Amino acid sequence: MARRARPLIALLTDFGYRDHYVGAMKGLIANVAPNAQLVDVTHGVPPQSIVAGALALRESWRHFPAATIFLGVVDPGVGTARKPIAIATRSGARFVGPDNGLLALAAEQAGIRNVVELRSRRYRAAEVSSTFHGRDIFAPAAAWLARGIRIDLLGPRLEEIQRLELPAPKVSRGEIRGEVLYVDGFGNLISNITRAQVANFRSAFPSHALFVRLERGAALEIVNTYADADGPLATFGSFELLEVALRNGDASRHFHVSTGARVTVRARPVRDARRG
Amino acid sequence: MARRARPLIALLTDFGYRDHYVGAMKGLIANVAPNAQLVDVTHGVPPQSIVAGALALRESWRHFPAATIFLGVVDPGVGTARKPIAIATRSGARFVGPDNGLLALAAEQAGIRNVVELRSRRYRAAEVSSTFHGRDIFAPAAAWLARGIRIDLLGPRLEEIQRLELPAPKVSRGEIRGEVLYVDGFGNLISNITRAQVANFRSAFPSHALFVRLERGAALEIVNTYADADGPLATFGSFELLEVALRNGDASRHFHVSTGARVTVRARPVRDARRG
Amino acid sequence: MARRARPLIALLTDFGYRDHYVGAMKGLIANVAPNAQLVDVTHGVPPQSIVAGALALRESWRHFPAATIFLGVVDPGVGTARKPIAIATRSGARFVGPDNGLLALAAEQAGIRNVVELRSRRYRAAEVSSTFHGRDIFAPAAAWLARGIRIDLLGPRLEEIQRLELPAPKVSRGEIRGEVLYVDGFGNLISNITRAQVANFRSAFPSHALFVRLERGAALEIVNTYADADGPLATFGSFELLEVALRNGDASRHFHVSTGARVTVRARPVRDARRG
Repeated sequence: MARRARPLIALLTDFGYRDHYVGAMKGLIANVAPNAQLVDVTHGVPPQSIVAGALALRESWRHFPAATIFLGVVDPGVGTARKPIAIATRSGARFVGPDNGLLALAAEQAGIRNVVELRSRRYRAAEVSSTFHGRDIFAPAAAWLARGIRIDLLGPRLEEIQRLELPAPKVSRGEIRGEVLYVDGFGNLISNITRAQVANFRSAFPSHALFVRLERGAALEIVNTYADADGPLATFGSFELLEVALRNGDASRHFHVSTGARVTVRARPVRDARRG
Repeated sequence: MARRARPLIALLTDFGYRDHYVGAMKGLIANVAPNAQLVDVTHGVPPQSIVAGALALRESWRHFPAATIFLGVVDPGVGTARKPIAIATRSGARFVGPDNGLLALAAEQAGIRNVVELRSRRYRAAEVSSTFHGRDIFAPAAAWLARGIRIDLLGPRLEEIQRLELPAPKVSRGEIRGEVLYVDGFGNLISNITRAQVANFRSAFPSHALFVRLERGAALEIVNTYADADGPLATFGSFELLEVALRNGDASRHFHVSTGARVTVRARPVRDARRG
Repeated sequence: MARRARPLIALLTDFGYRDHYVGAMKGLIANVAPNAQLVDVTHGVPPQSIVAGALALRESWRHFPAATIFLGVVDPGVGTARKPIAIATRSGARFVGPDNGLLALAAEQAGIRNVVELRSRRYRAAEVSSTFHGRDIFAPAAAWLARGIRIDLLGPRLEEIQRLELPAPKVSRGEIRGEVLYVDGFGNLISNITRAQVANFRSAFPSHALFVRLERGAALEIVNTYADADGPLATFGSFELLEVALRNGDASRHFHVSTGARVTVRARPVRDARRG
């Protein structure tokens, strides 16, 4: 890959696109680190949804250049005892944000090397508000890392970060029972059932066909891509998780379901014409 | 114009702003082409709307620097037989995306010089998913073009691209009968009737005044700009197409109409006070 | 701070994220000023809301580097007599946009040094439409400033700009009576009552507790941050204005109120257990 002259800061928040909140953070970063390149992962994380933000970071961080600084702010506990942190990882990526699980999935994949609490006043805004640490603590920390300071200057080491446990699907002999983890902007219903779990299940039922059910709905076939069905379908999307989708439509609206809805995979015997 | 040191990639998708999908593409581009400048045309194209995306590209490409690489992804047929392509044009602009009509209107205006199918594995992600070619095929191709490779390295030449036919208004002696092509974010109803068609019609009816009707609604005058009426109005907006709009309001909501609604232009005699 | 090699243009509009309108402006700027860095403040200002745009500029401009060029377009009067202007300020920031109050709050804070009307044809698009001055007048002016021309080349001096008067809260002996100025993307209801006004009021009622009422609703305590209550609350957010919010929720939807809703602060005697 070509050499990167400019440090890259990737931003993810639940601040939305209506207000100036993201703009204020970017202005501040441009002030501290004029050379930094700013890339938005997204600012459309559903408000206060730490799980959605953590998934978005987990699914995107590895596509970025190795030395990217990820600035993540989904922070329902802003101004309370939850700690502001920065994480250095073995892959080279660094993560800055609140210690509430938001950074956990991505940072674990990247290999946590060390963690600091953002306590140094030198690398914060002169006045820290109680409601906007994105601007007053996190953006300055990310910008100073982009300026090239060592992470240890930001504050004292912490032993560990707040983990995030996603609900795990239950695999029994007859079925995999999972749930919708995330609804994306197309209305695709992304479950917690992995491709590997379905492959294992499939090999346990050699002369069976698999089908998927959303709540108490009809049986859906697992197809290769969104255009391989005429209506509702199940497929493995880019998360490598089982999704329920609707061709050229919004499955979430169509089925009136959202995060937490039950998704089950079952096997049924295939009548084999050669033997029957 | 000043010399451009950095290649520019302009992105347009229907991925929306909720998810990390655009972020993953940008991370990947920053990885392959660290020097590229990324500019969003929009990611708010209505889901799966190839016409809306094609219009947005047609209306924006000419404002960009000549050598811009446009990366367009509105791709309801992702993972099926539709081809991934790149187009070089006589104006210098290049277009990367699915061969489903999305790129057609802009590329034809820019003057298609040659087209390749994105088949080279060297310029794709190592693993290509069946649901996210934006990340796995299109973004890498755009990034490698920004790195300076020749378009022919991306794959074999194609003879032609998928065209996009917009519905044409019907001009009869008594009226122009068109339809709403696109509803913009303000709720303005943009029809397929061009300024030139209205001018021709006007010269065919010299002592008549023109008026516009949306579906079976009231007659609207054609005014110069949005503030030239108190309520609903017709004007030529930045598309150079006849629009129905509502001063300081949302015409689409007000009239409960959307894409496909009928728009007619008619002439009625003007009673001339001097003669009457 | 590190030296900035590239001029920075910060954009704020009500163009939203659905259309190519912002993209066209950015393409044009990249064309005229290839070296400029573009940062979005927001494009989600509620359509035609000059007050919301003016507040967003006021709350963000000071976080940006001193020499930033702010390009603001919320322009319900596009194509009419309202003037297109550029403002130079004592802080170094420059502002480009319509003279309708949008730029006023920020420019006054930054200290207006001089104002010009954007009349020079040399620094406009070759053809100026009647509906899209963002693209045809404002973006070119901002880009040429970024190219380094003096502001006086853009057109003749103006004596003054259109001011914007925000509604002022009424302070009487028994209460502060304000109103909701702005509803942010989280649904927080931001009033026009300042922290200083509340502090003064508090010192006038030494043995009283303050409480806040939204319309005719229940009395709310003033807390330090959003997580310091279980449901509805009042706090001073990043605007340094009194807000009514809902922990992990959307106060605007919860209370069915929007801009203009009444917010009152009152004092009630505290029964002191030591004396009582």
